[in-house]
Amino acid sequence: MTNPLIVEVTRGGIVESRHTGAYAVVNAAGEIVDSAGDIAASVYPRSAIKAFQCLAMLESGAADRFGFTPEEIALACSSHNGEPAHVAVARAMLAKASTSEENYECGAHWPIEGAAHDAAVRALPAPLPVHNNCSGKHAGMLALARQLGVDPKGYTGHGHPVQRAIAKAMGRMCDCDLDRQPWGVDGCSVPTWAIPLRNMALGFARLCAPDFQAGQRILAAVRAHPFMVAGTGRFDTDIMVAVPRLFVKGGAEGVHCGCIPHAGLGIALKCDDGAGRASDVAMAALLAGLDVWTAQERESISAFARHPLHNWRRIHVGDVQARSA
Amino acid sequence: MTNPLIVEVTRGGIVESRHTGAYAVVNAAGEIVDSAGDIAASVYPRSAIKAFQCLAMLESGAADRFGFTPEEIALACSSHNGEPAHVAVARAMLAKASTSEENYECGAHWPIEGAAHDAAVRALPAPLPVHNNCSGKHAGMLALARQLGVDPKGYTGHGHPVQRAIAKAMGRMCDCDLDRQPWGVDGCSVPTWAIPLRNMALGFARLCAPDFQAGQRILAAVRAHPFMVAGTGRFDTDIMVAVPRLFVKGGAEGVHCGCIPHAGLGIALKCDDGAGRASDVAMAALLAGLDVWTAQERESISAFARHPLHNWRRIHVGDVQARSA
Repeated sequence: MTNPLIVEVTRGGIVESRHTGAYAVVNAAGEIVDSAGDIAASVYPRSAIKAFQCLAMLESGAADRFGFTPEEIALACSSHNGEPAHVAVARAMLAKASTSEENYECGAHWPIEGAAHDAAVRALPAPLPVHNNCSGKHAGMLALARQLGVDPKGYTGHGHPVQRAIAKAMGRMCDCDLDRQPWGVDGCSVPTWAIPLRNMALGFARLCAPDFQAGQRILAAVRAHPFMVAGTGRFDTDIMVAVPRLFVKGGAEGVHCGCIPHAGLGIALKCDDGAGRASDVAMAALLAGLDVWTAQERESISAFARHPLHNWRRIHVGDVQARSA
Repeated sequence: MTNPLIVEVTRGGIVESRHTGAYAVVNAAGEIVDSAGDIAASVYPRSAIKAFQCLAMLESGAADRFGFTPEEIALACSSHNGEPAHVAVARAMLAKASTSEENYECGAHWPIEGAAHDAAVRALPAPLPVHNNCSGKHAGMLALARQLGVDPKGYTGHGHPVQRAIAKAMGRMCDCDLDRQPWGVDGCSVPTWAIPLRNMALGFARLCAPDFQAGQRILAAVRAHPFMVAGTGRFDTDIMVAVPRLFVKGGAEGVHCGCIPHAGLGIALKCDDGAGRASDVAMAALLAGLDVWTAQERESISAFARHPLHNWRRIHVGDVQARSA
């Protein structure tokens, strides 16, 4: 099926580019509260489900054993900018788990955020794995390996006990047998299992169930430390600062997930072409359309449904804006 | 209308993301030789039509007066990487036209290419306008202002004589009255006029007509100096090195234009969602499908219709690949 238009990019008063996509809003009973497009097709969630990867670590007892703080748990759920605070928290996690940067299997890239990026390029000959936006998640995975008492070497492999524990936790949350699903290798070398959007959304609705302790611990962490989830100038951080009752997390290739704990709703969205600029504003528009907010919260969220485009001289040349599907 | 699927992005054996688009292949008589999707809709050509912006400069007599070499003419048609050779050629153009970097109105950004980018960040506190991928085009525009005997200040403005001369040349080539078309402000602050893909393709077919001297001069320049058109690791440079009988030029938001002089064909393509990763491989696939090549040329072109994706550890995780529409 053809998914609906969800985002338009305008310039000079006309539409320059168009993004289609699909999304599901689901409660913990699995009832579909809102949706658009094909939500039964399997989609790679990429980094949008880092909360479930963190969950496996929490449920193993690793977070308690190593004394991870809420800030560190938030970083384990993050795609961070590589700013100094992110790097410091990742290093603290590694130290607590008595492991080191040499064990990282995420690969290295320069920090995402501009100032941190330039500072790192000026200070170092090459980027470090701890700069990788996934370094908090991988610190959690190395802690999980230690807690499981297994060799951390190869912890990113599909068959390694770390990834088996994650697949089990994620499959349980999303009511989806991941052993029967397609999987690929993610940017940071761990497996990413394809999951239908409605199942991803169900997983996030279950994550925020009031009686699910591990989920409550994750949500308290990311909502108390939204900077750790992404960083300066990033959608996920900014919208959670603006609306603290919300948790959202983006992933590569236009995937965005989240939950609204006070309403018991989970959300999963995919922009067909993989554009993050589109999934951001589409997520904001879909959130704003749900009847679960105060007037002020809705106004705050709606501001994120349109993203102005500026050129190299900071002239406003157009907008990325959501279209109600 | 809904444009056809032109590119798929795969991972782990399934399709992760999808790109739709439209394209036209037209001869100098305006006959449509091949097409897909809506080629009558007006599309911002962005940097894909820098050859027409350069054409206005050539036809004014500026290139002769200032003694621009083929290498410099190629840079005037480019979206370059900001590598040292690009910066040096832009500066040589400015010197020949007795103008300076202070007159640039393109704005500044760091060089695109990795090594040049890192070297500039390490050497300078901030990027320079001459690093801007459009600095060769803007050097041509400053030369045109001088040739027209007008104040260069505001040369990027829609009503400035430089932009009027460009609109006139481009409208004539594309058989499209640009004064009746929507226009927006481009990344480098000059106007970009929306033009139907079939008219853009017509313009490129006319550019390569054997009896059109200014067009022949441009094509000789870009084909002799493909590195000047883009740079290290870039599609336009690499495919022109592989197949020297070809001229292609990409623009922002998934536009790609070009021409095949020996066959008298012009080409224009737009990926609906604006993704350059898709317009590159789609352009290669559409070129390969035309019956105008030697077997070796077709093989060389076909290699560009699939682009492998590697993650941070250089693991091959998927592909961006064209689908015949």
